[in-house]
Amino acid sequence: MSNLVDLAAPAVTLADIEAAARRIAGRAQRTPLLRYPELDRRLGARVFVKPECLQITGSFKFRGAYNKIRSAQEVGQGSGAVAGVVAFSSGNHAQGVAAAAAQLGVPAIIVMPADAPRIKLENTRALGAEVKTYDRYKEDREAIARGIAADKGYVVVPPYDDPAVIAGQGTIGLEIAEDLGRLGVAPDAVLAPCSGGGLVSGIATAIAARYPKTKVYACEPQEFDDTARSLAAGKRIENSGDRRSICDALLSKSPGKITFEINRRLLAGALTASDAEALAAIAFSLRWMKLVLEPGGAVALAATLTGKLPVKGRAVAVVCSGGNVDHATFKRALDRAAA
Amino acid sequence: MSNLVDLAAPAVTLADIEAAARRIAGRAQRTPLLRYPELDRRLGARVFVKPECLQITGSFKFRGAYNKIRSAQEVGQGSGAVAGVVAFSSGNHAQGVAAAAAQLGVPAIIVMPADAPRIKLENTRALGAEVKTYDRYKEDREAIARGIAADKGYVVVPPYDDPAVIAGQGTIGLEIAEDLGRLGVAPDAVLAPCSGGGLVSGIATAIAARYPKTKVYACEPQEFDDTARSLAAGKRIENSGDRRSICDALLSKSPGKITFEINRRLLAGALTASDAEALAAIAFSLRWMKLVLEPGGAVALAATLTGKLPVKGRAVAVVCSGGNVDHATFKRALDRAAA
Repeated sequence: MSNLVDLAAPAVTLADIEAAARRIAGRAQRTPLLRYPELDRRLGARVFVKPECLQITGSFKFRGAYNKIRSAQEVGQGSGAVAGVVAFSSGNHAQGVAAAAAQLGVPAIIVMPADAPRIKLENTRALGAEVKTYDRYKEDREAIARGIAADKGYVVVPPYDDPAVIAGQGTIGLEIAEDLGRLGVAPDAVLAPCSGGGLVSGIATAIAARYPKTKVYACEPQEFDDTARSLAAGKRIENSGDRRSICDALLSKSPGKITFEINRRLLAGALTASDAEALAAIAFSLRWMKLVLEPGGAVALAATLTGKLPVKGRAVAVVCSGGNVDHATFKRALDRAAA
Repeated sequence: MSNLVDLAAPAVTLADIEAAARRIAGRAQRTPLLRYPELDRRLGARVFVKPECLQITGSFKFRGAYNKIRSAQEVGQGSGAVAGVVAFSSGNHAQGVAAAAAQLGVPAIIVMPADAPRIKLENTRALGAEVKTYDRYKEDREAIARGIAADKGYVVVPPYDDPAVIAGQGTIGLEIAEDLGRLGVAPDAVLAPCSGGGLVSGIATAIAARYPKTKVYACEPQEFDDTARSLAAGKRIENSGDRRSICDALLSKSPGKITFEINRRLLAGALTASDAEALAAIAFSLRWMKLVLEPGGAVALAATLTGKLPVKGRAVAVVCSGGNVDHATFKRALDRAAA
């Protein structure tokens, strides 16, 4: 009941991630670690791919959402204790929250821009969520979500800056560590896509606990390198408002507060990939890996394939975080590969 | 040393498949069983997807090839005892044999038509095999392969009609049984693509041993339904020579001798899918499953999605056997889905 916060204590611990792993067991997809001889041959490395595009709803987001909602139910003692959940997102987080809420029998309201792609609105509704649209030029989606939460007593499920969400995404790091442990491989590096930083901060927490010498890297779109610049500056820096990228899942304005506090402590650095490099990685995955990736889900693979990190002779794990790509973008990648 | 054959004894037993599983452990990809809420929702069933498109070289063929070559080495005592291997194939079997031979340190010669797609010739060479081309209108590829085997003392790796190859493919059935066993699920049905029948006969052998009540179905292209017609007739029947299908991995002329003997005993039946249904299944997988499938690899999924087998309320496992699709075919699937 104290408001005092121990500033030295991490917001998320290995124990939190282990508890999250127990919660999502049998609910989330236990994704494998995949090997591809062509990837190893090209890079002269042992590359282990974590395909979170195969996760429920096509991205890693289900993990954090499920852990957040289930944790709230446990605190409230019983599933009736969470009246509902609310989230704001036009993309993967919306679907992750909708699917997790449906599994847990909790109503979900997702605040989405009225002009979001029809397919994303439909997918979110198909998962059982109520979609509340807003005017993205005039209204503040976060304020709308908080208003709904206050009115209805609903729990807000933030996209990344929340300990339970981070712990949920951290289960990916735990699974990587478990699978590599079984193979007797200590990874030299782990690379994961990064926007607000929930995914990579969770993974870094798990990996640091199991493999303290392993270097964990955030991978960002070239035009949205706020984590790279923030790590260099030692403080959170925003992207300017006029930037563009096809990596629609990775367009956060700046690192989260909690996520950056973890990432500045645990990350070895940040790497970037251009849109063209992300498209080339999608095409590579289509031909050699047989996984459907979206641009944001492919940035860590893109950074690896283009040698942004020297990996020769090393063992590296690469997280492919999502596969919800639209047809037009996928065709661009196909055309690129054919050229 | 006897030429007597016990006609009542099956050509492949569960013990053979378990031995194959030990051989391929750590060499082949241990593919997961995947769940997709959208698939379950559409069919009102519990659907478990076995994604062999994620296997080494993008199809299940690596398993049988590896088991065949490794078994030959064991018989010959030591890896030096197999001078080399030879296979005839323009597709997935070529790549599976090339990759398995490379892993086992054995030279491989693959007999391929001179006018095979350049990408398939290149892929096979990239895996370290020597490619021997022939004129498909004038020469007999099987005779060429047997000639090489005789000249050089190489071992022939047949595409399907071989006990060691069948046992290797059967490890897929063993893994399905293991994973479902862990979940406490007894499958009502297992569906797998079928051409010569190596894959489905191996799977049926493993499933029959573990789950005797489970029904196993061969899934074929509509125009290449030789197994369906052979099962109905009680004897092997050939397809006529003028048939066409985009399922290039499933164009065998007739069931194999050994495979049909197994399949007539163990299969519950055979289902078919049209080319259009296979393309629709590829598009479904792109959108909802995030797996890249080739037409032949998608026929069991296509048969399931189109209700060829009533699955409502049931637990079914569906094998997606390969993902080596060319861009033109993949674009046709994309355009279909967009329409």
